[in-house]
Amino acid sequence: MSAGAATVKGIIRSAGGPVPQLLERVEERLVTLAAGHGPILAVHAGATIAAGGKRLRPLLVLLAAGPRAAGRPELIAAAAAVELIHSATLVHDDVLDAAPLRRGIPTVWADGGRALAVATGDLLFSRAFAELSAAGSLEAVRALSRATSALAEGELLQRQDAWNAAVPIDRYLQRCELKTARLFEASCTLGALAGGASQEQVAALGAFGNSLGVAFQLLDDILDVAGPVAVTGKHRGADLLDGTVTLPLILARERDPQLAAVDLRAITTPALAEGLCDRIAATGALGDAQSRALEIVAAAKQQLVALDLTRRQRRALNLVADSVADRRS
Amino acid sequence: MSAGAATVKGIIRSAGGPVPQLLERVEERLVTLAAGHGPILAVHAGATIAAGGKRLRPLLVLLAAGPRAAGRPELIAAAAAVELIHSATLVHDDVLDAAPLRRGIPTVWADGGRALAVATGDLLFSRAFAELSAAGSLEAVRALSRATSALAEGELLQRQDAWNAAVPIDRYLQRCELKTARLFEASCTLGALAGGASQEQVAALGAFGNSLGVAFQLLDDILDVAGPVAVTGKHRGADLLDGTVTLPLILARERDPQLAAVDLRAITTPALAEGLCDRIAATGALGDAQSRALEIVAAAKQQLVALDLTRRQRRALNLVADSVADRRS
Repeated sequence: MSAGAATVKGIIRSAGGPVPQLLERVEERLVTLAAGHGPILAVHAGATIAAGGKRLRPLLVLLAAGPRAAGRPELIAAAAAVELIHSATLVHDDVLDAAPLRRGIPTVWADGGRALAVATGDLLFSRAFAELSAAGSLEAVRALSRATSALAEGELLQRQDAWNAAVPIDRYLQRCELKTARLFEASCTLGALAGGASQEQVAALGAFGNSLGVAFQLLDDILDVAGPVAVTGKHRGADLLDGTVTLPLILARERDPQLAAVDLRAITTPALAEGLCDRIAATGALGDAQSRALEIVAAAKQQLVALDLTRRQRRALNLVADSVADRRS
Repeated sequence: MSAGAATVKGIIRSAGGPVPQLLERVEERLVTLAAGHGPILAVHAGATIAAGGKRLRPLLVLLAAGPRAAGRPELIAAAAAVELIHSATLVHDDVLDAAPLRRGIPTVWADGGRALAVATGDLLFSRAFAELSAAGSLEAVRALSRATSALAEGELLQRQDAWNAAVPIDRYLQRCELKTARLFEASCTLGALAGGASQEQVAALGAFGNSLGVAFQLLDDILDVAGPVAVTGKHRGADLLDGTVTLPLILARERDPQLAAVDLRAITTPALAEGLCDRIAATGALGDAQSRALEIVAAAKQQLVALDLTRRQRRALNLVADSVADRRS
């Protein structure tokens, strides 16, 4: 188990109230959904959902909703829906990246091939909307469809920017927002909607989720360069091998003109990628990138101050922000 | 232009009333949506939507809705949404099949690669739900999500059944329903909902769409064996090369024991596939399969009799059924 997962488990325990029990209901719902579409999907969707990990997005749904929403069916539906979307993107990402393993287990792509993985992702995706439209509101469906549009746009942007080491920071941040932050935002928005929050509070919780998501992606990209392998479970520089230019390289290129001259297309082996990671680290860019991420987390926590939250909600959301800042995997 | 497309155009003209103008608004909306997500998607989604063809599903939405719905924004949204889903499945199918061409133009997969095609499909998919939830009802979103779940399940079933020449007819028909008929059904359902039809009428129009969709898929599968290439634009037996067992082979195996012994995995070239098509045709199975399809179309038309439709609606829906029966591409 990774340190990040342990931290999230700690938050769930310390959140107290109905949260641990609600998360169990979400888990049961996800298992039911994975099992309800025939034996092939049961195996592959089940494995993907299980591999999805920390349940950070459902946790955000539940925490943003607060105690008033605890008995509402749309709450469990919303929490399951965001995790289904997350799982769908994992399956499709593994097709895009031709990835053999995720969290140490074979991906659907590796196990069942491209066709099965595309269809499995499509089904998880559809089930998310079915789930949310069965129990939620039109406003909730809108929020989720905005997030899934953003996810796909982010993926397209990333493909467009591939191998372009000169990509500007703003563009990189836009990609983080589309690829990651919008689903965090939607998680908070759906929770707030299920909790009957005011329009203002829905927007503010969404903004908190968005900031958290951007920081999450930044720290993910830093981990890809910083490792260590024993913690992340994959070799360093996977993004570089993929042509994906992230903040550490962008900042390092500003500091080291020789790095600016590196042609990413020449980075064709894990050893070369790790070598480039070392050169990026040597510029001090990792510390810079981490400072930026932590500033965003701090700003997100600041956004919580003005919100109308219970003491428990506030503490748990702050802990989630801390766990993102501390993430090690 | 294919004969099928001409027929649909003929129906649109003869449907009269607001239909031709509404279909133009749907077309404009699709162009706007394709253009609204950056230059990459504009090219690929635009080409896919353009290649989608006959707009049979939006036409079903408009015809099922009837004249009362003409001014309603949810009508255009619903018609655009079903075509977006259809386009999304085309893009993903081309990834699954590694297809170089669709209707004579390069597929997104061929032009931009696997990653771009998966993401483009995901975006079209998301935009469909965004479109429908912006203007439609929760009931409409539910109907669409049921259809997209079915599409993906059908795809999974097809992969599961691949190369299994002994697949039973019932299972094949179930696949046709999931892969094709449910989106036809949803098109009619969404139209009926936008038209404010009674629950009974919504269900009956949905059932009409479902029957039509099953027949459409049967005839598609017959064309794959029957050709001719000059009309369909692809070599005969593409399904066989793919390991996809359809009604003509299922019926032919019952008639010709030697065919029952053929190992589909040995059919590895277009020439071998065409040879097998000839052997299937020689059993008379194509005529049998076509009779079954035409019976389903006739039953669908019969379902219209009891419905509360305007004269124009009824005539146009009957013409759509005839065009499915007559399909040549």
